[in-house]
Amino acid sequence: MGKRVTIADVAAQAGVSKGAVSFALNDRPGLADDTRARILEVADELGWRPSSRARALSTSRALALGLVLARPPELLGADPFFPAFIAGVETVLSQRGQALVLQVVPDLEAEAEGYRRLVSDGRVDGVFLLDLRVHEPRVQLLESLGLPAVTLNKPDSPSSFPAVCSDSESGIRRAVEHLLALGHRRVAHVAGPDEFAHAARRRAGWESALAEACVPPGPVVVCDFSAEGGARATRELLALADPPTAVVYANDVMAIAGLAVAAELGVKVPDELSVVGYDDTLLAAHVHPPLTTVSVDALAWGAQAAQTLLTYLEHHAADDVLLPPATLVVRGSTGPAPTR
Amino acid sequence: MGKRVTIADVAAQAGVSKGAVSFALNDRPGLADDTRARILEVADELGWRPSSRARALSTSRALALGLVLARPPELLGADPFFPAFIAGVETVLSQRGQALVLQVVPDLEAEAEGYRRLVSDGRVDGVFLLDLRVHEPRVQLLESLGLPAVTLNKPDSPSSFPAVCSDSESGIRRAVEHLLALGHRRVAHVAGPDEFAHAARRRAGWESALAEACVPPGPVVVCDFSAEGGARATRELLALADPPTAVVYANDVMAIAGLAVAAELGVKVPDELSVVGYDDTLLAAHVHPPLTTVSVDALAWGAQAAQTLLTYLEHHAADDVLLPPATLVVRGSTGPAPTR
Repeated sequence: MGKRVTIADVAAQAGVSKGAVSFALNDRPGLADDTRARILEVADELGWRPSSRARALSTSRALALGLVLARPPELLGADPFFPAFIAGVETVLSQRGQALVLQVVPDLEAEAEGYRRLVSDGRVDGVFLLDLRVHEPRVQLLESLGLPAVTLNKPDSPSSFPAVCSDSESGIRRAVEHLLALGHRRVAHVAGPDEFAHAARRRAGWESALAEACVPPGPVVVCDFSAEGGARATRELLALADPPTAVVYANDVMAIAGLAVAAELGVKVPDELSVVGYDDTLLAAHVHPPLTTVSVDALAWGAQAAQTLLTYLEHHAADDVLLPPATLVVRGSTGPAPTR
Repeated sequence: MGKRVTIADVAAQAGVSKGAVSFALNDRPGLADDTRARILEVADELGWRPSSRARALSTSRALALGLVLARPPELLGADPFFPAFIAGVETVLSQRGQALVLQVVPDLEAEAEGYRRLVSDGRVDGVFLLDLRVHEPRVQLLESLGLPAVTLNKPDSPSSFPAVCSDSESGIRRAVEHLLALGHRRVAHVAGPDEFAHAARRRAGWESALAEACVPPGPVVVCDFSAEGGARATRELLALADPPTAVVYANDVMAIAGLAVAAELGVKVPDELSVVGYDDTLLAAHVHPPLTTVSVDALAWGAQAAQTLLTYLEHHAADDVLLPPATLVVRGSTGPAPTR
């Protein structure tokens, strides 16, 4: 496999914490001599080599963290997660004298180029890795560039970086369980793009909750998280010969567009159709009917990610963090399944 | 008055461009000797003194621009202008090897502290000044810190910085004229907070368009640009003994919340109430009914602001830019005034 030996591997083998391994490998005081010797022995056995990342960690000086977002500008403007996340990051950085360097780029290729530039310019000490992909390629890129990172959720590829995780799957499961309890048996899903890990996880949550209740999964329409996509998907679902009685959307923006399509077509929400969003954006409570949605605390996520990345930069190790589970906020857009 | 003499003053008096003045004062080649001599004479006559700002300009090295936003995090997440603006800024910065340093702070005091920190850390060569206030205090602060800036719109206080302007007043005027042409004579306004210059200008546009048509201004409710505020304002207006037949909102978020309140109260849009927003966010076309709104190109605004700030940093002078006028996008939320 040629898999890189990480500090975590050494820690597991030596039976010590990742922090202790980091201290030993970086020759920092605070460890008993025999512990240090054992760790170095294990590291040697396993073939651990100091990466350029580790070297960068030892000499970090920029006092700035980076965020490179590969999103089409027009979609970025429609996603309320991102500014709330940044605001959360800032609550920590501002107190620590750290700056945030932001880049918005059109695609993954430009994102890779952005990281290379951040490294060559010495602009940042570490970066936030958002919007993880299925078969995530960027973790390896960052490791090879020696650019430390914190990832939002755990990538599906090996990663030596700490992760701050929010369990989106259980949030969606709660939404489906709520619909099942209301008698719905034909529950559709409007999913985000397949290549995004969070989109895949939301879809998996929807599917597994239905499977556990022995209810066959309703139709799925995959779109792009945009209002326009949500509208189109809703039209498609409502035009089916046997349309769903409930739709779980992968974000609020698509769900709000779905409410509008239902209103336009004269489909009453929630009497004839229940609608669930994801994010609990500020607008969710102020559409008609108010949107039942899964509430994610993007602000807390940003603050925790910043905290974790700074810890990682300081101690060369940081534990993964699991945020409190997302909650379901029940409002007027969901109701009992219609009797046919 | 003690008003500072600016490069613009010297340029006007000497009958040359601001660029020529900058070249002369910074002893850069490319000017005829007699022109240079005349400019220096005029500068001397008027009492022009090199500011710390000008000194900073000559030694700018950070190759980064700053944006400090004083907004409560939860409101930031609800404002689609900001990410689109940043994306526009990035289209220019990424091509010029410049980075964007972003700070999100809770209030104006923290914003001032943010600028001081950016200067003392030498992090940025210049900043974007957004959300201008009525009696704008920050221009003077930035000048005293020697931190060059570009302002979004012209501040109401003297400023030596270039401004990139979008005429929001004429956008709102078009919206009001559209409603007047539809026969509306009781047109309300849901305004943004008084202290923001753009909120004041939108309100002024609404008021002057009505005044010119000799229609008395309808009621005004001032709120905070939030969905919740827009909902509350709409309830207040629709509860009046003589409610308006049309409402012009200072942003889309409040207008969308207004549509929901109307739906909840059984007030038909547009048959009984016409609704106009401002921003033309991506969601505007996908609510029910689709929202008539004033379209502002935040992406172009960001790109132009970045271009202007870089020009200013390079040449120590840059002309103000007036963006193409905002357009009115007519959709289903406006219709003929109801007959009573």
